[in-house]
Amino acid sequence: MRPTVTDLDVSDIRFPTSLEFDGSDAMHPDPDYSAAYVVLRTDAPRVEGHGFCFTIGRGNDVTAAAIRALAPYVVGRPAPHTAAELADLCTSLTHDSQLRWLGPEKGVMHMAAGAVVNAAWDLAAGQAGLPVWEFLAGMTPEELVSLVDFRYLSDVLTPDEALTLLRAAEPGRAERAARLRAEGYPAYTTTPGWLGYSDEKLVQLAKAAVAEGFGQIKLKVGDDLDADIRRLRLAREAVGPDVRIAVDANQRWDVADAVRWMTALAPYGPHWIEEPTSPDDVLGHAAVRAGQPVKVATGEHVANRVMFKQLLQAGAVDFVQIDAARVAGVNENLAVLLLAAKHGVPVCPHAGGVGLCELVQHLAMFDYVAVSGSREDRVIEYVDHLHEHFADPAVVVDGRYRAPEAPGFSARMRPESLAAHRYPDGPVWQAVAQRAQGS
Amino acid sequence: MRPTVTDLDVSDIRFPTSLEFDGSDAMHPDPDYSAAYVVLRTDAPRVEGHGFCFTIGRGNDVTAAAIRALAPYVVGRPAPHTAAELADLCTSLTHDSQLRWLGPEKGVMHMAAGAVVNAAWDLAAGQAGLPVWEFLAGMTPEELVSLVDFRYLSDVLTPDEALTLLRAAEPGRAERAARLRAEGYPAYTTTPGWLGYSDEKLVQLAKAAVAEGFGQIKLKVGDDLDADIRRLRLAREAVGPDVRIAVDANQRWDVADAVRWMTALAPYGPHWIEEPTSPDDVLGHAAVRAGQPVKVATGEHVANRVMFKQLLQAGAVDFVQIDAARVAGVNENLAVLLLAAKHGVPVCPHAGGVGLCELVQHLAMFDYVAVSGSREDRVIEYVDHLHEHFADPAVVVDGRYRAPEAPGFSARMRPESLAAHRYPDGPVWQAVAQRAQGS
Repeated sequence: MRPTVTDLDVSDIRFPTSLEFDGSDAMHPDPDYSAAYVVLRTDAPRVEGHGFCFTIGRGNDVTAAAIRALAPYVVGRPAPHTAAELADLCTSLTHDSQLRWLGPEKGVMHMAAGAVVNAAWDLAAGQAGLPVWEFLAGMTPEELVSLVDFRYLSDVLTPDEALTLLRAAEPGRAERAARLRAEGYPAYTTTPGWLGYSDEKLVQLAKAAVAEGFGQIKLKVGDDLDADIRRLRLAREAVGPDVRIAVDANQRWDVADAVRWMTALAPYGPHWIEEPTSPDDVLGHAAVRAGQPVKVATGEHVANRVMFKQLLQAGAVDFVQIDAARVAGVNENLAVLLLAAKHGVPVCPHAGGVGLCELVQHLAMFDYVAVSGSREDRVIEYVDHLHEHFADPAVVVDGRYRAPEAPGFSARMRPESLAAHRYPDGPVWQAVAQRAQGS
Repeated sequence: MRPTVTDLDVSDIRFPTSLEFDGSDAMHPDPDYSAAYVVLRTDAPRVEGHGFCFTIGRGNDVTAAAIRALAPYVVGRPAPHTAAELADLCTSLTHDSQLRWLGPEKGVMHMAAGAVVNAAWDLAAGQAGLPVWEFLAGMTPEELVSLVDFRYLSDVLTPDEALTLLRAAEPGRAERAARLRAEGYPAYTTTPGWLGYSDEKLVQLAKAAVAEGFGQIKLKVGDDLDADIRRLRLAREAVGPDVRIAVDANQRWDVADAVRWMTALAPYGPHWIEEPTSPDDVLGHAAVRAGQPVKVATGEHVANRVMFKQLLQAGAVDFVQIDAARVAGVNENLAVLLLAAKHGVPVCPHAGGVGLCELVQHLAMFDYVAVSGSREDRVIEYVDHLHEHFADPAVVVDGRYRAPEAPGFSARMRPESLAAHRYPDGPVWQAVAQRAQGS
């Protein structure tokens, strides 16, 4: 018996992270890490799919409304479990003839589609008894190609080319999966580098990161050049010459600012400059890459596969940073993995926030097993926030993500965490409101 | 006494246009033209600002939720009335450190910001007793420059360059305003060309358009090449050799399809091909423009000034089609007008839908008076739908928009129209539901 989806439940879940400046950067000084959290329930006991949009506070209610608007596309239908069914679900959400006006394929409505698609993958992989990375890596090249929406991609990547890429990576899948289970996947940590942290906290956390086995850390930059030089120097002294230090401007600059700033930081050897300018500015990224010596990375705010296509076409990036919860879920991220593989550009996923590490690890591991076939120059972001709220938290040991073993997408938050952090009526937010009244 | 904004009221207003295939195209076969409608109320009697997001049905409730999320940025504050205050309002909405995660500057949240910004312009111009085009055209070059958010533009357009452009257009403002009042602004009509119309209806409406004085019509294309050739031939026979016929694919094609299709249609002399591919695909538009002989137009779905900047930088478009209700309102559209003026590319606004003609006419007229200084090769889209619902409807006579004279942005719908079309509980929608039950 195939289960039928009976409900799409949405909750507005927020964490008051801004109280400690966790997650603070040059453009987002006060994030409250949040999730518009969706559960697809079925008529079969304990068969559910969980997913979410990640936001940083205000507007999480708008994203929740967008997810609710997608209920008619899933409720009352069989839970998708084949590649063809998961592909159909994805295009029914992204190409709906009326909803597409709200994007097309970008912003709130597109993120909501991603949450529902990812919840469907959690459900399907759970039903198959496999973690999503293995569920994906068990599909044939033909099935994987069928998952991808090639609309607007064919000038750069055709289904035939994608098939050729995936077939070339077929030999060795089992060996790579075994190596992944034994060795994990390299991580880097952003924990030391938030812009709101003191120099002392930066140095202490940078040293701790090295002691924990990380080979790369990341610092937020972009607010004050002198301060950034000082912080980068302190971090370099703390970690020594062999640990990579990436820097991240979170879209703070125009092109000329980015070139000037990174020319000044270049002597301290930053591994990459992340989000130097607007995520929409393909030509701007290309100009930044051409104008200064540090490698360029972007992607966490890149809206869809068409924008990633152009970043690669224009030679604008050295690293592609997929995000599990911004584009239309697993399906569209598979398109981005294929585009990156075709261009030989490493994918180094964005993570952090709430639950992004849990999700995106599956995509990077699948990429290694079945798409790029490589971990070289590849690393998944890690931030040690909020993992305790997940039923199957991401596990990083000795600077490496362990391969998830639990069935599904590691997306499920613990029921007591959901209850505590519901906004605005959960007890955590009631306490914040009371403290604010008292002060 | 400065009025204070006391309320932000939002309504979900929809028109069942899909019942007659009005507005049907290759990507949107069944639009229900809709508005997430916002009223800024104040503590002064009859001092209000009206604005809206245009959508095509489903998801209008999500857009309404996004507008509601912006209430804290306007309610309880003085109604903005100077250039500086209108600029502050716009950046407070588009650069909010938490809300920007939902874009940034694109999709539902950005459209919502545009609706609120436009409502503030309606209020400010109304207070000044001027239509928005005259209110804008009465500002100094310095005030106009202060309205624009130059973030991410400075590699292509600096505030100083914008000032130089605007100062160069200062002489002659009064003469051009007088000419506008006497002669109006050229329009073209899309009424004949919806994809769901029969050949007979196409021919009849095309002839009617010429009889009404239009010098340009537009046909939707992209579903079937043979049918498009037939329809273009019929339209050409109906209008004669001197009337321009633009064609519009509404994003239907990949690059190679667009080149093939337009190469086949080129012998019938289409004036431009509009939206040949994804609005996000700057490099794709450039390839389409280079690959076939017909001029390229786009803009109604272009998310923000950064994307318009690149379309112009890449030489990807021959015509820029601003939309009044997709970007962040008057302020961001002023940035686009300045970018187009710098590149010498004519702006031919997108309109139609519900209320888009009413709004965008002000921007094109302001462009003529104070930015580009020219009406050459410029034309505003016109569709004769739904104007009866507006208090100050756009008026097109002899194929030309008359210059609006009423104070404000011509954005106000009649109260009885709002009441009738409220979704889902207004009487029009109750009747649609009853008919559906009966059939």
